[in-house]
Amino acid sequence: MANSKTIDDYRVQFVSHLAQEIQSKEPKNLYEPINYILGLGGKRLRPVLTLMTTDLFGGKSKDAMNAALAVEMFHNFSLVHDDIMDDAPLRRGKTTVHEKWDINTGILSGDAMLINSYQFFESYPPNVFKELISLFSRTAIEVCEGQQYDVDFESRDDVSIPEYLKMIEYKTAVLVAAAMKMGAIIANAPQEDANAIYDFGKNLGLAFQLQDDFLDAFGNPESFGKQVGGDIIENKKTFLVLKAIELAPKEQKEGLMHLYSIRPKEAASKIETVKSIFLESGAVEETNIAISDYTQKAFDALNAINISESNKQVLKKFGENLMKRTV
Amino acid sequence: MANSKTIDDYRVQFVSHLAQEIQSKEPKNLYEPINYILGLGGKRLRPVLTLMTTDLFGGKSKDAMNAALAVEMFHNFSLVHDDIMDDAPLRRGKTTVHEKWDINTGILSGDAMLINSYQFFESYPPNVFKELISLFSRTAIEVCEGQQYDVDFESRDDVSIPEYLKMIEYKTAVLVAAAMKMGAIIANAPQEDANAIYDFGKNLGLAFQLQDDFLDAFGNPESFGKQVGGDIIENKKTFLVLKAIELAPKEQKEGLMHLYSIRPKEAASKIETVKSIFLESGAVEETNIAISDYTQKAFDALNAINISESNKQVLKKFGENLMKRTV
Repeated sequence: MANSKTIDDYRVQFVSHLAQEIQSKEPKNLYEPINYILGLGGKRLRPVLTLMTTDLFGGKSKDAMNAALAVEMFHNFSLVHDDIMDDAPLRRGKTTVHEKWDINTGILSGDAMLINSYQFFESYPPNVFKELISLFSRTAIEVCEGQQYDVDFESRDDVSIPEYLKMIEYKTAVLVAAAMKMGAIIANAPQEDANAIYDFGKNLGLAFQLQDDFLDAFGNPESFGKQVGGDIIENKKTFLVLKAIELAPKEQKEGLMHLYSIRPKEAASKIETVKSIFLESGAVEETNIAISDYTQKAFDALNAINISESNKQVLKKFGENLMKRTV
Repeated sequence: MANSKTIDDYRVQFVSHLAQEIQSKEPKNLYEPINYILGLGGKRLRPVLTLMTTDLFGGKSKDAMNAALAVEMFHNFSLVHDDIMDDAPLRRGKTTVHEKWDINTGILSGDAMLINSYQFFESYPPNVFKELISLFSRTAIEVCEGQQYDVDFESRDDVSIPEYLKMIEYKTAVLVAAAMKMGAIIANAPQEDANAIYDFGKNLGLAFQLQDDFLDAFGNPESFGKQVGGDIIENKKTFLVLKAIELAPKEQKEGLMHLYSIRPKEAASKIETVKSIFLESGAVEETNIAISDYTQKAFDALNAINISESNKQVLKKFGENLMKRTV
C-alpha cells in the first residue's frame, strides 16, 4: 500500500534512480561537476515529496521518478549558481563547484543542469508534459526572482515584512509546493486538489524557512547543522530582525540597526546582545506565532483535499516531523 | 504571398513584437539587464529564419512569433553567459551586461532568460509544445556542450579538425538549424521536410562559421565588422590554423605553433607571418573548399524538400546572400 512506505523508502528509491543518471558523458568538464554536486547527498526532500504525493493521490511513484529527478536537478542548479553569487566555499561540507573547478565551469555546468531538468519531463505524454513544464517554468522564474530580492535586500535598510515573506516564498517555498503539485498532476488528481497540495507545500515551506531563521539564532548548535548565529554575524535581514525593528523601542531599535551595520571580529557579544533584543522586543514570540500560523494554514489546505484520512495523516505526520526537524 | 516578404519585413515584424515583450518588471535588477541586452539590436537572424520558414512551409509567420522570441531570448542568454566566461567588455559595440552591472547580475539575469525562453512556447498546443520544447532542449544542451569544447580547446594543442567541426556545429550551427526546423514544425510540415530544413540550416551555419574564420584573417576591415586578425592575436584554433598545422611542412608548422604560443605586443608582423603560412600551406584553399562543400550540402538538403520551387529559391537566395555577407 502507498502509505506503508516511509520517507526513507522513497529516498532510497530516488537515490538509486539518481545513481543511474550519473554517467560519464562528454565533454567531461561540463558533466563531471554535475555528477559531483548531485552526488554530494542531502535530504532529497523535494524529489521525495514528488514521489510520495503521487502515491498518496492514487498514482504510482515510479511514474513520478522523472519529475522528481527534474526537481532535484533544478534545485542543485540553483545551489551551484547561488554558491557562485554568495562566494560560498562549502556546500554540504564539501568544496563548492566553482571552488573545485572555477566560476566559468560553475556557470556553464549550472546552465546545462537547468536544461537537463527540463529534459527529464520528456517521458510524459504531451498534455501532462505541458502542465508540468508550465508549472516548472513559473516556479523556476520565481526562484530566480526570490534570489534577486535576497541579493537586493542586502543593500537595503527598509525591507518590509511582506517583502521578506515574498522573498522566502519565491526563493524556498514555491519549489517545495511545485514538487508536491507535480505529484498530484502525475496522479491525475483534480485541479483543486492539485492546487490545495501546492498550498500545503507552500505554507509548510514558509513555516520551515521561518523556523530556520529562528533556529539560526536560538537552535541547538549540536543538532542545527549550521553555525548558530550565522545570520547575525552576516547581518542577514531575517524575519526576527525585521520584527524586532518593528517592535523594539527607539533605543533598542537603533542599537540593533547599529549592530547590523558592523562586523566585529569577536562576534559572541554581538550575538548575545542581538538575541536579547529579539527576545525582549517580542520578535521571538511573533516569529513563533508566524511559524504556527503557516503550519496551520498548511494543515487547513490539507484538510480540504479529497484523499483518504489515512493518506492525509501521512502528510500531516510528515509536516509535523519536518517542523520538529526529525525529517 | 509568403515569399513576397523580404528579410527586412520579417525583421521589422519581429522587432516590433520584441518591443512589446520589453516591459518594466520587478525585481528591476533582474529584468533591466534582460531588456538591455535584447535592446542592443543585432541582425535577429535566427528569429527571422523561424518566421520565414513557417511562411515558406505554408504556415503563418505570426503563429511562429513566440518560437522566434524564444530563439532570440535563448541566443541572448548564451551571449550574456559567454561574455562573462570570455571576460568580454563589449557586445555589439556596447558594454556587456556583467560589465554594466556585475557578474552575479549576468549569471542570474541569464538564468531568467533561459527560463523565459521556455515560457514563450506555452502558447502552442500540447503536441506542438512538446515537439518544440524537446528540439529546443536538445539544441540548448548542444550549445552548452559546444561552449565547453570551445573553452577546453583553448588549453589543448592536439585539437583535431573533426573535433573543431563538432564544436562549431554545436556552438553555432544547431541553433540556426533548430530555428528553421521550428518554423517547419509550426507549419505542420512532414517530418522528413522538417529534418531537411534542419540540415539546410546546420550546413549553412557551418559554412557561415568557416567563412567567419576565413574573414577574420582575410576579410576587408571596412566590411567585416570585427577586428581583422583578432583570432590570430587571441591564438584561437580555427579551421585555418588546424588545416595549416596539418598541411604545412615541418618547419612552417613549428613556426606556426610557436606563433600560437606567444602574444606579442605589436601583433602586425605575427598576423602577416601567420597569414602567409595559411596561404602557402594550402589551408586557405582547403578552407574555401570546405565552405563550398557545406554550402552545397545545405542546397542539396533544400532540394529534397517538398515545397514549391519559388519558395526553395527564397531560401537559396537567402543562403547565397548570407555567404556573400549581405544579409
